Amino acid sequence: MEEAQGAQTITAAILVIGDEILSGRTKDKNIGHIAERLTDIGIDLREVRVVPDVEEEIVAALNAMRARYTYVFTTGGIGPTHDDITADAVAKAFGVSIDVDPRARAMLLEYIAEKDLNEARLRMARVPAGAELVVNSVSKAPGFNIGNVYVMAGVPRIMHAMLEAIIPTLKTGAPMLSETVRADAKEGDIAAPLGDIAKRYPDVAIGSYPFMDDNGPNTNIVVRSRSRERVEEVRDLVAAMVARR
Amino acid sequence: MEEAQGAQTITAAILVIGDEILSGRTKDKNIGHIAERLTDIGIDLREVRVVPDVEEEIVAALNAMRARYTYVFTTGGIGPTHDDITADAVAKAFGVSIDVDPRARAMLLEYIAEKDLNEARLRMARVPAGAELVVNSVSKAPGFNIGNVYVMAGVPRIMHAMLEAIIPTLKTGAPMLSETVRADAKEGDIAAPLGDIAKRYPDVAIGSYPFMDDNGPNTNIVVRSRSRERVEEVRDLVAAMVARR
Repeated sequence: MEEAQGAQTITAAILVIGDEILSGRTKDKNIGHIAERLTDIGIDLREVRVVPDVEEEIVAALNAMRARYTYVFTTGGIGPTHDDITADAVAKAFGVSIDVDPRARAMLLEYIAEKDLNEARLRMARVPAGAELVVNSVSKAPGFNIGNVYVMAGVPRIMHAMLEAIIPTLKTGAPMLSETVRADAKEGDIAAPLGDIAKRYPDVAIGSYPFMDDNGPNTNIVVRSRSRERVEEVRDLVAAMVARR
Repeated sequence: MEEAQGAQTITAAILVIGDEILSGRTKDKNIGHIAERLTDIGIDLREVRVVPDVEEEIVAALNAMRARYTYVFTTGGIGPTHDDITADAVAKAFGVSIDVDPRARAMLLEYIAEKDLNEARLRMARVPAGAELVVNSVSKAPGFNIGNVYVMAGVPRIMHAMLEAIIPTLKTGAPMLSETVRADAKEGDIAAPLGDIAKRYPDVAIGSYPFMDDNGPNTNIVVRSRSRERVEEVRDLVAAMVARR
């Protein structure tokens, strides 16, 4: 896709870490939330991967994604138990050491009494060398940022708080603008003229999404571009096409 | 992880195809459903990727995944509009031609009057050479299977029907058995003894999942193995550890 003139495209990927998502025991709610928030601020989410709690899988996926996108956001695996291996895997991916960070330890002590700060809980203060902490306004145990990678909790409420702490620090792009035209038609009846419009406007993303309403199959056509002018031009063309039927 | 003696491990991956998931406009509901059903029948879901409606991205992800896992399931991108490019991308990944399949066309005619079977709708009958069709009991337009790849619709109700049609044809493994022990403790208070148990039973997957109940932070410990004996042995050890606290 062509980009709007002068705009730099900021891209992102999400790496979801956790056996519980792959077993179906836990239904992921983080991908959709991060996707929406990134779209809001003009960052293009380009890829998502879900991998198990296996170090070499996390390292391989992270290295593939961080080389390719402006930012990578991970969720999951930063708690105190033996299956929380994200911080170690990230350190390994970056080839740096990992140890208890005094700043992270201090954050834990805002929430956990010193007598309860056992070795397991102290694991939550281990961050790769050179990482910056991401504050956790919910339960204090921080996430962290190293290079272009942001490591967040898997618990949605904590992840939300971490993401909001991260967002003001990100480079953002021109927001993707979108307009939706309800076709009041079946997808197959508008596919040909819609395809013609899409061919004429390769710089505008045109998606066709079928849904069921009370009268049966219907279709939403979503027109997306970073240019207000282009999105409105194509929306009007789509609306006129739909009205002509 | 070691496998139970004599059992063959059947693995799988999911490839979700669609800009609408990456933009956050549509929240994926298919990953969790497929994950649960595969777990039910003893197939290990090992990876999920979400990619945009871009041919080279679909081809690259599919080729990486189909080489690595017993099965790959795709969702999305098999409708009649210009942004439905999954069938073409799959044909390209396999290096085979693609054309309207007479069997698929006949299926479409069960649902669509011949006068309405325009060129766009006929796109839904295009399948890669050598593919077998996957019946769609909801709206007839079929999915397909080529090699170890199963191509399904993105609309959840249709995807569910296709998956149920596919499941009886799959090799299945010994089902993964799981037992959950509620710890009535914070994760950080049981992490050390739990880690000790996990170290002693490397063939048993032990996950620790924090949640909030009325009394505050609590933890579910999930013990998983294909061996009934091992899962019960470890469950009892975990329960005894929790009770000793």
